[in-house]
Amino acid sequence: MYLERISSPADVQALDASLLPSLCAEIRRAIVDSSAAAGGHVGSNLAVVELTVALHRVFNSPVDKIVFDVSHQSYAHKMLTGRAAAYLDPARAGEVSGFSNPAESPHDLFSVGHTSTSVSLACGLAKARDLAGDTYNVVAVIGDGSLSGGLAFEGLDNLAELGSGVIVIVNDNGWSIAEDHGGIYASLAELRRTAGTSERNVFRDMGLDYRFLADGHDVAALVETFSELRGTDHPVVLHVCTVKGRGYEPAEANPEAWHHPKPFDVATGLPRAAAGAPGYDEITGSHLLERMAADPKLVAISAATPYIMGFTPARRAAAGRQFVDVGIAEEHAVTFATGLAMAGAHPVLGIYGTFLQRAYDELWHDLCLNGAPATLLVFGGSVFGANDATHLGFFDIPMLAALPALTYLAPVCREEYLAMLDWSLGYTDGPVAIRVPAHGVVSRLDLAPAAGEDFARPRYQVVRSGSDVALLALGTFFELGERVADALARVGIRVTLVNPRSASDLDEACLDELACSHRVVVTLEDGALAGGWGERVAAYLGSRDVRVRCFGLDKSFPNRVPADELLAACGITVPAIVSDVEALLR
Amino acid sequence: MYLERISSPADVQALDASLLPSLCAEIRRAIVDSSAAAGGHVGSNLAVVELTVALHRVFNSPVDKIVFDVSHQSYAHKMLTGRAAAYLDPARAGEVSGFSNPAESPHDLFSVGHTSTSVSLACGLAKARDLAGDTYNVVAVIGDGSLSGGLAFEGLDNLAELGSGVIVIVNDNGWSIAEDHGGIYASLAELRRTAGTSERNVFRDMGLDYRFLADGHDVAALVETFSELRGTDHPVVLHVCTVKGRGYEPAEANPEAWHHPKPFDVATGLPRAAAGAPGYDEITGSHLLERMAADPKLVAISAATPYIMGFTPARRAAAGRQFVDVGIAEEHAVTFATGLAMAGAHPVLGIYGTFLQRAYDELWHDLCLNGAPATLLVFGGSVFGANDATHLGFFDIPMLAALPALTYLAPVCREEYLAMLDWSLGYTDGPVAIRVPAHGVVSRLDLAPAAGEDFARPRYQVVRSGSDVALLALGTFFELGERVADALARVGIRVTLVNPRSASDLDEACLDELACSHRVVVTLEDGALAGGWGERVAAYLGSRDVRVRCFGLDKSFPNRVPADELLAACGITVPAIVSDVEALLR
Repeated sequence: MYLERISSPADVQALDASLLPSLCAEIRRAIVDSSAAAGGHVGSNLAVVELTVALHRVFNSPVDKIVFDVSHQSYAHKMLTGRAAAYLDPARAGEVSGFSNPAESPHDLFSVGHTSTSVSLACGLAKARDLAGDTYNVVAVIGDGSLSGGLAFEGLDNLAELGSGVIVIVNDNGWSIAEDHGGIYASLAELRRTAGTSERNVFRDMGLDYRFLADGHDVAALVETFSELRGTDHPVVLHVCTVKGRGYEPAEANPEAWHHPKPFDVATGLPRAAAGAPGYDEITGSHLLERMAADPKLVAISAATPYIMGFTPARRAAAGRQFVDVGIAEEHAVTFATGLAMAGAHPVLGIYGTFLQRAYDELWHDLCLNGAPATLLVFGGSVFGANDATHLGFFDIPMLAALPALTYLAPVCREEYLAMLDWSLGYTDGPVAIRVPAHGVVSRLDLAPAAGEDFARPRYQVVRSGSDVALLALGTFFELGERVADALARVGIRVTLVNPRSASDLDEACLDELACSHRVVVTLEDGALAGGWGERVAAYLGSRDVRVRCFGLDKSFPNRVPADELLAACGITVPAIVSDVEALLR
Repeated sequence: MYLERISSPADVQALDASLLPSLCAEIRRAIVDSSAAAGGHVGSNLAVVELTVALHRVFNSPVDKIVFDVSHQSYAHKMLTGRAAAYLDPARAGEVSGFSNPAESPHDLFSVGHTSTSVSLACGLAKARDLAGDTYNVVAVIGDGSLSGGLAFEGLDNLAELGSGVIVIVNDNGWSIAEDHGGIYASLAELRRTAGTSERNVFRDMGLDYRFLADGHDVAALVETFSELRGTDHPVVLHVCTVKGRGYEPAEANPEAWHHPKPFDVATGLPRAAAGAPGYDEITGSHLLERMAADPKLVAISAATPYIMGFTPARRAAAGRQFVDVGIAEEHAVTFATGLAMAGAHPVLGIYGTFLQRAYDELWHDLCLNGAPATLLVFGGSVFGANDATHLGFFDIPMLAALPALTYLAPVCREEYLAMLDWSLGYTDGPVAIRVPAHGVVSRLDLAPAAGEDFARPRYQVVRSGSDVALLALGTFFELGERVADALARVGIRVTLVNPRSASDLDEACLDELACSHRVVVTLEDGALAGGWGERVAAYLGSRDVRVRCFGLDKSFPNRVPADELLAACGITVPAIVSDVEALLR
């Protein structure tokens, strides 16, 4: 096995050229096997095996700088830069993350997990190089739908003006997570069809040099082309055609399902775990599809992640023109939704909170300033979501709850979620965002809102009544609140337990009452404390004779810290909270 | 005069065609005269006079939907939709804002003041139209550098796929606020040079139909072209060449200076008021230029507003390759800065806080997550900045202070500002943002930081010591804090006055001491309260035996409310604060 003997790019460079295809086969096998064991980005990584081997054969990383866009295609890169054992030995899998990470290796230049940043980062590297009089190569590898993100365009536009030596490899596999969307991909398809000779060339139009390579799995051709481009004194785009999932039949046959599969059986491609009960994806997709059938003005929107809201290919087909996937273009998704809402349609945008960050200004300046009646379903907003530092979901409350005119609701259970969703579809006074619970589906008939509940004016739901401590437990932390309440009751402390429902607005009347009748108010928040909801409660009660203690996550970028560990580090465990409350009551 | 008799687009349509040039001349005169009296967007509005007359001649607003990008070129539109008096009668100038505003007129479809949103909004309008089975026209007018914003690209990319009837008018005057930047503008220039016939056509490449009109000041030609495009069943880009400042010689000669002049003398083009003392623009530009001469790795970056940081054409020339204007591309600016910083250069990005919103995710995911040592100079972050709802600057603290790893400093005076700026240039542990005071330049030697002060660990500066109330007065509100302290002292209340310096981090040791030795802590914050700095102080002190009262701005979108009025409405006046404090001490 050659891969085991590769400890740095120098070993790739020393290998006899005739052995490179064997090395590629080993890498491919390691991608499939390691992902089969633990899940992973199968399709995108299989597509760039030869490309990555050729990169490290020709360029001298880390002196030469290689930036992987999104970096969910960096497994081969990691294997060739001293981290192969993590993919070959299941016991060592935990040594690498799924994304590039400077803490892991000097070959990983940036922490990257969001899309479309590589060209701008490369521009910065090249400009710094030029100012310092250095001569290293700068290479950006972009693909998997990232070209439709506006930042990628801004980067290319500025790269043309910078005029400096940068190689942009457009890894064109024809797919985003689902199929590609937008005019730029029609343009790429035309270039593929014409082997790069079409006059319709968006890169040349912007002033960038352009090269085409038809077979991105021909490692010798890649090495030759990279060798020609090495040392370029001007920006050049190399358009390389690859196959998503290349070399693993199930992944080639269904790229969307194989974008990031859960653990699977290599021989059959079938998932190892049986499908569980329907999650909020299924619940959302089936509910919206029913509502759409009754209301032709209801439009579901996704920015390249339709599955998170249950819009499988079958549901997309059923929704027809009432479903729009805008591709990786979160900014457009929000401003497009604003236009729809202001013209009388009702858009429902389902999106991960961490990616919604890309549209912060569009939320502020388009959606909220115009009071557009749209529904945002925010997924993954929780410590129980993704735990890669690049994808942390628990910064959504500081981001969204500070926006004027936006109602941000945090349901606890399925019943509350659907009631809020249905209410939002009929609400016309402004945008509503709903924090889809990220801790599994919980059914709680006892928490179900009354029929006709108006969520625009938050009314806290008092679930238990006491007199010493009022526990305000928001959204997915309501269950923690119940456990804390039980534990406090066991030590004789009389607890009021509240489901606040809203992360953006306070029920001041309820807070006034609680402040009068309790000695301590505690907020529990499944989100970052700084700038969040609990601090607002504390400020509101600051002039009252009641002590307030806010629990939430620290303002930091923990990387791959398990939720329980992170919570414990932030003092969010039942014993720690009980002990804090006891101290406050003393 | 014809303009006085135009009360709606129907009047434009009823006018004899031969009179349209006279109407245009009157509009042009009204733009110059009204801007001479009160300041305004002269250049962009003069460029679209004929274009706007032709739009309202051919399309039937508001049934047909016209969206002006940025909307700083909507003066003629306002004049033709019932609001001419505001431009003709100085006494009525206050009736209109400088931007489109649905509260003013049904012809203004959206509140718009940021760039590059029009195509996405138009996509939403068109999609809603199609779902409802309507047939109205949808027109987006985009220009003035807005095409380089990534959102505009996302919009065009998706418009090509939407395939629906939308007319995008690219108003190509060759300028942003300063000169255009980026490859897309080289492409437009090539199309101008070839009268639209070049094969290099970025619009066609993306699958959009394309038309070219050489003379955007020929109203008859515009009317004819619009008539041909009316009712289009597919997306079409109309590329129209205009001259920024057209018809007013000083503006044509120097478009950058005439983007938004202060009141001026029409005959000479000279400003009416003498230039005042140097502001923070001049102070910043001259200071950075000095530092650059000594440090070739220092790079100043602007996103199309170089003047706010004092980078006049002369200073840009002097800075040479150490100054980069990326054009309207705030996202790229931040990610580019990240690349620069991680490769050993030190970028200084000067930007309005309201426009920095466009780069929220790039701040979070690129700059902060990577701990990139860059300096951000945030301008206009204050109630004393712009007061159009579209440009409110006081949401910067909730946006920036919640970002992990970012140090956000709020200097009070010139001495503190320069000390913080210099410190940031040598700081290598992460990004630093500085809230440039927006209330005029104040020199305060008594507040000057000690030499070598380390701003990474905030130490509150205790300026006066008392024992009843501790006033924490941040940044531009420090002066208010002094006035409140004086007033409290006059009624016998012993006041501690603190300059907190940092909006992102707490000096917990100082807060602990203040909580022990005072009965009341007051925070004064020139920014939105929700998610801001004061709430964090309140939460930190929530479990202490001290009352906390936070003063700041409500979470809302006040439009053109003078600062004093807005402050009074939020309870931020010296008497109101004194009265609140007295009540808390009772």
